[in-house]
Amino acid sequence: MLGDTIAAISTAVGESGIAVIRVSGPDAVVEVERIFKSKTPLREVTSHTVHYGHILNPENDEKVEEVLVTVMLAPRSFTMEDVVEISSHGGIVAVKRVMDLLLLQNIRLAEPGEFTKRAFLNGRIDLSQAEGVIDLIRSKSDKAFSIALKQVDGMLSSKIRKLRHTLVETLAHIEVNIDYPEHDVESMTSQFIKEKSSEVMAEIDRLLQTAEQGKILREGITTAIVGRPNVGKSSLLNTLVQGEKAIVTDIPGTTRDVIEEYVTIRNIPLRLLDTAGIRETMDVVEQIGVERSKNAVSEADLILMVINAGEPLHQDELELMEQIRGRQAIVIMNKMDLPSQVGRDILQRYFPEELIIPMSVKEEQGLELLEEGISKLFFSGKLESADMTYVSNVRHIALLKKAKQSLKDAYEAADQFVPIDMIQIDVRLAWEQLGEIVGDTAHDALIDQIFSQFCLGK
Amino acid sequence: MLGDTIAAISTAVGESGIAVIRVSGPDAVVEVERIFKSKTPLREVTSHTVHYGHILNPENDEKVEEVLVTVMLAPRSFTMEDVVEISSHGGIVAVKRVMDLLLLQNIRLAEPGEFTKRAFLNGRIDLSQAEGVIDLIRSKSDKAFSIALKQVDGMLSSKIRKLRHTLVETLAHIEVNIDYPEHDVESMTSQFIKEKSSEVMAEIDRLLQTAEQGKILREGITTAIVGRPNVGKSSLLNTLVQGEKAIVTDIPGTTRDVIEEYVTIRNIPLRLLDTAGIRETMDVVEQIGVERSKNAVSEADLILMVINAGEPLHQDELELMEQIRGRQAIVIMNKMDLPSQVGRDILQRYFPEELIIPMSVKEEQGLELLEEGISKLFFSGKLESADMTYVSNVRHIALLKKAKQSLKDAYEAADQFVPIDMIQIDVRLAWEQLGEIVGDTAHDALIDQIFSQFCLGK
Repeated sequence: MLGDTIAAISTAVGESGIAVIRVSGPDAVVEVERIFKSKTPLREVTSHTVHYGHILNPENDEKVEEVLVTVMLAPRSFTMEDVVEISSHGGIVAVKRVMDLLLLQNIRLAEPGEFTKRAFLNGRIDLSQAEGVIDLIRSKSDKAFSIALKQVDGMLSSKIRKLRHTLVETLAHIEVNIDYPEHDVESMTSQFIKEKSSEVMAEIDRLLQTAEQGKILREGITTAIVGRPNVGKSSLLNTLVQGEKAIVTDIPGTTRDVIEEYVTIRNIPLRLLDTAGIRETMDVVEQIGVERSKNAVSEADLILMVINAGEPLHQDELELMEQIRGRQAIVIMNKMDLPSQVGRDILQRYFPEELIIPMSVKEEQGLELLEEGISKLFFSGKLESADMTYVSNVRHIALLKKAKQSLKDAYEAADQFVPIDMIQIDVRLAWEQLGEIVGDTAHDALIDQIFSQFCLGK
Repeated sequence: MLGDTIAAISTAVGESGIAVIRVSGPDAVVEVERIFKSKTPLREVTSHTVHYGHILNPENDEKVEEVLVTVMLAPRSFTMEDVVEISSHGGIVAVKRVMDLLLLQNIRLAEPGEFTKRAFLNGRIDLSQAEGVIDLIRSKSDKAFSIALKQVDGMLSSKIRKLRHTLVETLAHIEVNIDYPEHDVESMTSQFIKEKSSEVMAEIDRLLQTAEQGKILREGITTAIVGRPNVGKSSLLNTLVQGEKAIVTDIPGTTRDVIEEYVTIRNIPLRLLDTAGIRETMDVVEQIGVERSKNAVSEADLILMVINAGEPLHQDELELMEQIRGRQAIVIMNKMDLPSQVGRDILQRYFPEELIIPMSVKEEQGLELLEEGISKLFFSGKLESADMTYVSNVRHIALLKKAKQSLKDAYEAADQFVPIDMIQIDVRLAWEQLGEIVGDTAHDALIDQIFSQFCLGK
């Protein structure tokens, strides 16, 4: 039993209108009541109601803060425990004053992720849903958020549970037939195992097929814009960033993340290498030469090489093309509004034709083609449908692969008429591996490790 | 009437457990209902209740976010309008998704401070209370917060209202007697005006006496630690910062403000000049010489000059002492654990005896004395009592001074038997000036200017 009561600041800390402190545990209501004065004592209020009042220091009755307090009683709360949320003024001092007083009561500071961990341990969500919660908070693009929200909603979980159900049925079938080792029963059982493991493997394959796209949609495609000086790299970057509603700058009062720049092209998030880096990289041939350019290129999943079509190709450019040949790269023939001095035939020695895109960044021509090129490169033209379940978490991907291998072993063993009680072990293993995804068979160390990635207050 | 409905993110933006979007206005409930799906339709819920559900995109019914929605109906809300608070997952994307959808409804983005402005315009709080709200959010120390909270609670307002009430009575008295210009009535009225204006002036004086302390408590004493290299400046800084529970570093997950460092000594907040600055300033004599030191000193309200008592005074130190003579300065004779080489008599040529403090920062000796010295310097030893009202806002201070001047004019006019209808003008002016503090007589431009200082979402 999770006996104690925990508290943490659940909103980001900074100058703001309001901040929220969350308290969860069996004593949440009585402990908060000690320091909260309102018309109705907190213990007498009904669940899911909000109350205006003051936080008072019980030692001297000094008013510490003016707050709204929300009570959500077990089990109808995020943690399935009694939860009290204290909404105070924003800013650093307000929350600190209230937190200090709370921690003088029979309440301790929550560990990172401890609220979500309790939601998991109390059975409200499973492990993959909890992992979705981290992804929600960390997501940098709309698409990444959608994928995470579906995971939180339990779409992946329900698929995994179905597969596990099939495996449990298979195991039950095996169990029954182990006691009747007549030849034809055994052969029928082997056949049954082969059918069922094929069925589950096919489903796992479908999920794994979404993995690469899922990872891309979640993390973004690491993208480097390279090329000689003055070919239009900065202009391209600006066009990409402006063209989309950049998430961070859209919200007044937030500062743009200086380390990475995220843009979304046809629902595909590009993670542009850090702005300063990019801006340096842009003049890389000039400044630090090919060496530096190589580094930028080697990190990237996608390379956008910009050339000036109005000038003959430069030796540096031929070297760069040589270097990125065979990588996921798009060549942008910029300044196509000028008479072209570059033959497509030379470029085609290095790149497939459809990835050589004529553009005029200045005139905003060709952007459509570029977008199409990127979309083709990463999704083979098939765009994801809205209700698809993506597997995007590396832990899930690894477990799906393991489970598939176990089922393959079971299939092959069944095919070779290995004794059924041996095959049973592989099927059970697959069942356990899938169980680890949703946390049914996960061990404590793993669970601790997963929740330690959370921010405080969640 | 404030007809439209507004929305803004009210929590700080960042990776966090939860974020809150606040919606206020006559259509808050119906407009949010369009995009919110829960068991009970939002229009049917009772006030001050919380509801779990999903934000849905009405165009395609796609789940946009999983939220808790709180409804607080007029007039029992922060703005006295219908207020809906949407509590979403933390992080940038979650709030952006919900905000984007809200702004597609019949809702517009709130201006900075607009919620508080509505609370003011709808009569829930007055102007000085609203100004207290800014101070609450911005406060950097516990003491500053307490002062602001009292202002929000209306302690200053009620004092001002009492004074205005006295002035209104006085004006009424004058009004009645203007119609009876018999000599003795007029002389009695003059006497009455003198009594009443003296009374109000005395109260204003009492308030103004708190102003300097209030300003210090609110903004902190700008403090520079100066001295030659290796006299123990860094150690003193560290001792001061560690000795107190530094507010920012206390809250996990927040980053320390690098521009200023706040410490509280006996309830007096010191605003140490920016850390980098200070750390440079420390070796200032060595690095950039007296010139740089002068700048640090000229900005400061308090100078802590550290000398090494184990060595004879250096020429540089004599120059520095010459420079800060007459300023609010404390000389710390550090390293008193070593045999002293510095005579107090030389120091006493520059500083009052009680501000020459023997210390050993390393051995943590003498810190008490330093604290006492600082407290004496700024509060003449009298420490503020818990239930004192401080005037800390420069606008309020200026208006109190103006009102006092108007009353002084009235008093002197009455003393010289100036016709009473002339005196009446001054009394009315004082009444108006005091009214501007609480906003009863404030004009729109002033009100706009005050609320524009707020952060978004408050």
